[in-house]
Amino acid sequence: MISLADIQQRIEQGALSPDGAIAQALEAIRVQDGTIGAFVRHDQRARAQDSGPLRGIAVGIKDIIDTADFPTEMGAAIYRGHQPRADAPVVMALRNAGATIIGKTTTTAFAANDPTATRNPHNHSHTPGGSSSGSAAAVAAGMVPLALGTQTGGSVIRPASFCGVAAIKPSYRLLPTVGVKCFSWTLDTVGLFASGVRDVARGLAAMTGRPALVVPAHIAAPRIGVVTQDFAGAPEPSGAEALQRAARAAEQAGASVRTLAMPEMVAEAWRIHPVVQDFEAHQSFAWEYGRNHDAMPPLLRGRLDQSRGGTPLDYDAAIAVAARARLALAAVFDEVDVLLTLSAPGAAPEGLSSTGDPRYNRLWTLMGVPCVNVTALTAAGGLPVGVTVIAPFGADARALAAAAFVEDALRA
Amino acid sequence: MISLADIQQRIEQGALSPDGAIAQALEAIRVQDGTIGAFVRHDQRARAQDSGPLRGIAVGIKDIIDTADFPTEMGAAIYRGHQPRADAPVVMALRNAGATIIGKTTTTAFAANDPTATRNPHNHSHTPGGSSSGSAAAVAAGMVPLALGTQTGGSVIRPASFCGVAAIKPSYRLLPTVGVKCFSWTLDTVGLFASGVRDVARGLAAMTGRPALVVPAHIAAPRIGVVTQDFAGAPEPSGAEALQRAARAAEQAGASVRTLAMPEMVAEAWRIHPVVQDFEAHQSFAWEYGRNHDAMPPLLRGRLDQSRGGTPLDYDAAIAVAARARLALAAVFDEVDVLLTLSAPGAAPEGLSSTGDPRYNRLWTLMGVPCVNVTALTAAGGLPVGVTVIAPFGADARALAAAAFVEDALRA
Repeated sequence: MISLADIQQRIEQGALSPDGAIAQALEAIRVQDGTIGAFVRHDQRARAQDSGPLRGIAVGIKDIIDTADFPTEMGAAIYRGHQPRADAPVVMALRNAGATIIGKTTTTAFAANDPTATRNPHNHSHTPGGSSSGSAAAVAAGMVPLALGTQTGGSVIRPASFCGVAAIKPSYRLLPTVGVKCFSWTLDTVGLFASGVRDVARGLAAMTGRPALVVPAHIAAPRIGVVTQDFAGAPEPSGAEALQRAARAAEQAGASVRTLAMPEMVAEAWRIHPVVQDFEAHQSFAWEYGRNHDAMPPLLRGRLDQSRGGTPLDYDAAIAVAARARLALAAVFDEVDVLLTLSAPGAAPEGLSSTGDPRYNRLWTLMGVPCVNVTALTAAGGLPVGVTVIAPFGADARALAAAAFVEDALRA
Repeated sequence: MISLADIQQRIEQGALSPDGAIAQALEAIRVQDGTIGAFVRHDQRARAQDSGPLRGIAVGIKDIIDTADFPTEMGAAIYRGHQPRADAPVVMALRNAGATIIGKTTTTAFAANDPTATRNPHNHSHTPGGSSSGSAAAVAAGMVPLALGTQTGGSVIRPASFCGVAAIKPSYRLLPTVGVKCFSWTLDTVGLFASGVRDVARGLAAMTGRPALVVPAHIAAPRIGVVTQDFAGAPEPSGAEALQRAARAAEQAGASVRTLAMPEMVAEAWRIHPVVQDFEAHQSFAWEYGRNHDAMPPLLRGRLDQSRGGTPLDYDAAIAVAARARLALAAVFDEVDVLLTLSAPGAAPEGLSSTGDPRYNRLWTLMGVPCVNVTALTAAGGLPVGVTVIAPFGADARALAAAAFVEDALRA
């Protein structure tokens, strides 16, 4: 993988030119992407910008995010050749920070479940996860040092775990979702993939103009609450082992680590996540589903077929549960600085017909809290397994610092 | 004006065919719109749908809301000829309820301050208000019984007041803003214009599948708190008179009416509304402002020029004020059922170079609470002046019922 922080340092030192860094990314795409299939399209003539903290940083953009210079096809036949007028605000934030948008990365159709042909760089017969399949795979394969994805259930953290890259799903609305194809407006969140936690933090800090997000040189040992999410069922052995290993490493590095049960209202929020997601999806995809039913991707169409008839009252009740659960979760952070939990049931499943299971991610998306994936181990078949570090809403800097602490501990 | 409820009743009784109702709207547009200029474009071949509660109802859609069958030009040169792929969810909600989208109504450029050429139907030398200029004017002139607009500061309630029509800015997110050109994601709200409060309620109930929004036959007399918004400065005599007249009429009809001062935190939220709006607008319009600076509408460009350099810390502080103010405002509703306040400083200003002042509207947009405009008097020059009825967040049915109570009282 290519470290964003490393590129920044080499450019600063004059050891690498910004255009040289972009050329390296283009060359890696040329060599790798025929096998991996992480990009829908990319710009072979891409060049660096002259200034900005992200000059020389090549970025891949998930293909549900509007770009003025590339079509945005949503991974779906209905949007083939679709050319937005404008760049989404998150794309302009990258450009304004000096980054080079090098291309568009694959997405499951409409960021739902219908898979792409993208392969996991660690094992080509396994899924990279989804829905941000191409962004996770492009970073994992060393094609780009930074990529954008989105998460409604587990579409950033899960592929990051499967592909062994760091990623953040920031606090809800830290990054605007304007110009991003909507699945569920209560849930959709733009996230970042990079080589390590410090790289993710530098990317997010530059995009948002929030230097406090950069991981400090010295990180105070955090108080960590380990959450097993029993309400979501048991993990596979590799998932359980990843969580244990991360907890043990953090403890050995000086963190205080304890197991925490979630309040019942929080478990209830896990259960009603699909009510919120599906009720809003029926509105978000009303035109596609109503006017282009036959051209809809089959798994998403099936999901919408099955969830027809959700009532406003059911939805209102689910939204009320989410609000109560957010308060209950906030109180949990009186006792610990961060939570540590599973990023996925285990390593990436074999085959490309499924992108894996978001059951350990969806609660935190609904809670709107910042989540950072850290790679914890390499399982059979060379496949990585990650864990998630979670901080309170708005405490993205704390989530990133604690995740860097865990990352350091695991590498020690 | 054409009453939506009246059309529904006549269609139900067989006295009017759905296609006949649409033909009437087309004829009114033909006769009136050359003078008023409420439509950007309309479909002369529009026909009624066969079924649905809104069959035979012709609807005008503000031209910042995506439509698959009409270009969506945002009132701005940068989007000339822009054709979205899909209908916005609110447009599909209308179609699915049986309505006929008859055309696109004028909007100030990007729903900001640069005015349209639309005239106030009550006095052609006065503004209809903005930014939903065409939607308010089209209903006021009797061209359509229902129209959609949006509000970020006062873009639904103010033109409704100036044009003498009923309107609702619903609770934040009762209607999705997906497919609506974003100004500020914390503020933007889709609203409805119609002839009277009951018509607005029927339109919103049909769009949302929430029959509880329909105003009941008997309305219990509400406890009303009159709010003068002194923090926003004094109104003109006609604005003050409208508020007094509405309060007096409601009291005579049996409502309990008292004057209420707002908690200081709520006044502070009024002051920081521009901080939220401008910080988000710089992101929402990043592509337009950064890449098409010279083609930007001059008033919006000037506003963005002046508000450059807003920091994330200022924004975070403003968002925190808004959250505290929402709690403080919720407590006010322990004592009253609804608030009654000014919709505008006074009647529509003369000339078409300004759309008027949203200073009495913007607080409530930031609070996310449902606001309903009711026409309270006719001032000099034949110009109407409205008042606003406000209920707690989520209590849109209460806001509509109380507004209908005030409307009835004023007509008694």
